[in-house]
Amino acid sequence: MKVVIVGAGFAGLQCAQRLSGTPVDVLLIDRNNYHLFTPLLYQVASSLLNPSDIAYPVRAVFRGSPNVRFRVAQVTGVAFDAKAVQTADGGRFPYDFLVIATGSATNFFGMNSVERAAHGLKDLPEAVALRTHVIRAFEGATRETDQAVLRAWLTFVVVGGGPTGVEYAGALSELIHRVLIRDHAELDLRAVRVILVEALDHILPAFLPALSEDARKRLERLGVEVRLGARLLDATDGRITLSSGETLAARTLVWAAGVKPAELDTALDIPRTRSRRIAVDECLRIPDCPGAFAIGDVAGVTQDGGELAMMSPQAMQEGRYVADAIIRLERKQPLRPFRYRDKGIMATIGRHAAVAQVGPLSFTGPIGWFVWLFVHLYQIIGYRNRLVVLISWAWNYVFYDRPIRLITRGKDGTEEE
Amino acid sequence: MKVVIVGAGFAGLQCAQRLSGTPVDVLLIDRNNYHLFTPLLYQVASSLLNPSDIAYPVRAVFRGSPNVRFRVAQVTGVAFDAKAVQTADGGRFPYDFLVIATGSATNFFGMNSVERAAHGLKDLPEAVALRTHVIRAFEGATRETDQAVLRAWLTFVVVGGGPTGVEYAGALSELIHRVLIRDHAELDLRAVRVILVEALDHILPAFLPALSEDARKRLERLGVEVRLGARLLDATDGRITLSSGETLAARTLVWAAGVKPAELDTALDIPRTRSRRIAVDECLRIPDCPGAFAIGDVAGVTQDGGELAMMSPQAMQEGRYVADAIIRLERKQPLRPFRYRDKGIMATIGRHAAVAQVGPLSFTGPIGWFVWLFVHLYQIIGYRNRLVVLISWAWNYVFYDRPIRLITRGKDGTEEE
Repeated sequence: MKVVIVGAGFAGLQCAQRLSGTPVDVLLIDRNNYHLFTPLLYQVASSLLNPSDIAYPVRAVFRGSPNVRFRVAQVTGVAFDAKAVQTADGGRFPYDFLVIATGSATNFFGMNSVERAAHGLKDLPEAVALRTHVIRAFEGATRETDQAVLRAWLTFVVVGGGPTGVEYAGALSELIHRVLIRDHAELDLRAVRVILVEALDHILPAFLPALSEDARKRLERLGVEVRLGARLLDATDGRITLSSGETLAARTLVWAAGVKPAELDTALDIPRTRSRRIAVDECLRIPDCPGAFAIGDVAGVTQDGGELAMMSPQAMQEGRYVADAIIRLERKQPLRPFRYRDKGIMATIGRHAAVAQVGPLSFTGPIGWFVWLFVHLYQIIGYRNRLVVLISWAWNYVFYDRPIRLITRGKDGTEEE
Repeated sequence: MKVVIVGAGFAGLQCAQRLSGTPVDVLLIDRNNYHLFTPLLYQVASSLLNPSDIAYPVRAVFRGSPNVRFRVAQVTGVAFDAKAVQTADGGRFPYDFLVIATGSATNFFGMNSVERAAHGLKDLPEAVALRTHVIRAFEGATRETDQAVLRAWLTFVVVGGGPTGVEYAGALSELIHRVLIRDHAELDLRAVRVILVEALDHILPAFLPALSEDARKRLERLGVEVRLGARLLDATDGRITLSSGETLAARTLVWAAGVKPAELDTALDIPRTRSRRIAVDECLRIPDCPGAFAIGDVAGVTQDGGELAMMSPQAMQEGRYVADAIIRLERKQPLRPFRYRDKGIMATIGRHAAVAQVGPLSFTGPIGWFVWLFVHLYQIIGYRNRLVVLISWAWNYVFYDRPIRLITRGKDGTEEE
């Protein structure tokens, strides 16, 4: 029985791990050779962690799993009738069961000016490019004599008040106030602005109002200006226009206000939900595509009248469910519908505060932060990465340092942006 | 009194550090924002260390030095008569004293086919590109069905038997035999070849014959084939031709067989030695260029009838000497000629062996390795980087692991090679 899993993110990896040691042959395909722990991408973009601390080689995960093979490849299409997957390197892989887990990408909602001007924060190259850009902005400011240009170098606009935007704005403010300003003694700290823009009237909309309000106050204490009820309208020539009428001259724009399901190189001709995710039934099967499942951000899973959020706990539970479903189908056992069980949500604000909501319990401040730290350390793959992340955090905690402040370049000397 | 130092390598950094706190104004210029600890580049290229472990932000070095400023810029020229330095970003910096410390770059001696085919190992982008290429070679071999192509993917040719080539060949062999082969269980280890090519009849020519011979034996025990008395003649379409007549089908060629003094964007119109290094007098001054010094790899310093080697101890001593010379000149004191004092040389072979030659003493094997480790940890800048490098080594020592096995890409999705 051949199972092909496309995507080694949270959903695909959990599915493959659950199938390890079972009597099916698994082929896991990803365009990268690593599993990325995306919840900590913002720490790469804010100079605390190295890419390798949150990226774990997929092959290392499956060293002890002879029934799981891995291939680095770009999937270009799926022949649902012939039950085969095609890859860009000429590979063709027949399957009995297919699991599409291609995840999501930054969504600019068709705003081309924003897409050209903004940094996304969804994958490792984006995070490294953003880190490099921020360090370069301070170099630019330090050599600038025109005061207006200098202030634009030192104005950082983060769009999107969800966990990614909130966590990055907090970490960026700490990077600037605790570290970069000591590296650039000639700059006036008062010229620095970090602005978080959110279209709703509160940040972290998935959280209880009290936690959302706590997070906003803590962000402001870190020096972040929070603009609520404002959407980004345009970003052209370093001028950012908000729906409130305010314009900002800024050379750094971070877009954390939307994700969309990630397409393969060729879009698949299968039904989508309104949010363009792959439509699946209550057992995560793609209708009229025998043996095919979709899970994680790319799959539109309906529960209690709404679609599940594009988040890692949902993806992981779906991955484990589909692995079990494949085993049940192989044993000719009936499937039970998938049901997501909410284990809680959390977001950090700066170096020792977080908001966490676990069932009926809420945590804020340092206690929330320790809950957050423990949960994330537990989820990171590999003992070395756990150790390194813990040491990095301890280092930051004691010395307020964010040491990965490198402007890196490609081999041909081109800038890595 | 204005001092401009071009280059923040070992020579330039030592010079600036020695001038910190003295009554001169120092401007240090480098095209990168970090000081690179080049002796450990081979550990980045062999997946043990992260770039940030050996690259330290220059600004962090001079946080407590108000008389030292730093600028990231490409120097495009020097007006020796007008006593000013020009940078690509339009900067013009007048000086009383100029210190040229631009270092060295990989030298392919005009062999264009080799330059196109080979990976250098002189800067961070080269090291990351080589790391990525080796990981990708194993991915390529794993998917290959043509046995000849598969063997070419698994043949790694390192040219140059100096410390860089020897250390990289040993580390690469360990990466392959201890780590990659466990990630690629479907590959036949016997198909892997690591070949070190040296034109002389012994490797590590700067060392005593007994140490050189010890290093060769240890390399061979690690699985490296050592080819002595063979030069690289050509490298075209994956076919490598040696002067011995042997040809090798290999998809990986590492060139560690030559360096040349690094030019500025525009070559300076000043006298050169036969090795194209800047000619300097016994006080490291550039003749007929008042106030100008050259130090480090770019400077051709004659001592006892020969030119000093392009190595970091020489560069560091020259940097400190010129700092002192500038202070003496400012005080109208006479200069004493520069004299390099040899403190010893060392090279590692694999994870717990090294050869070291310190005055009349020689060390080999594990003792040599501990001497080597101690000296390198001492020289790395920053306590965090020392800690991280030490932990990485301990991790490798206990688990035989080399964890940084990422194939990274640029933001636009292009391969980083």
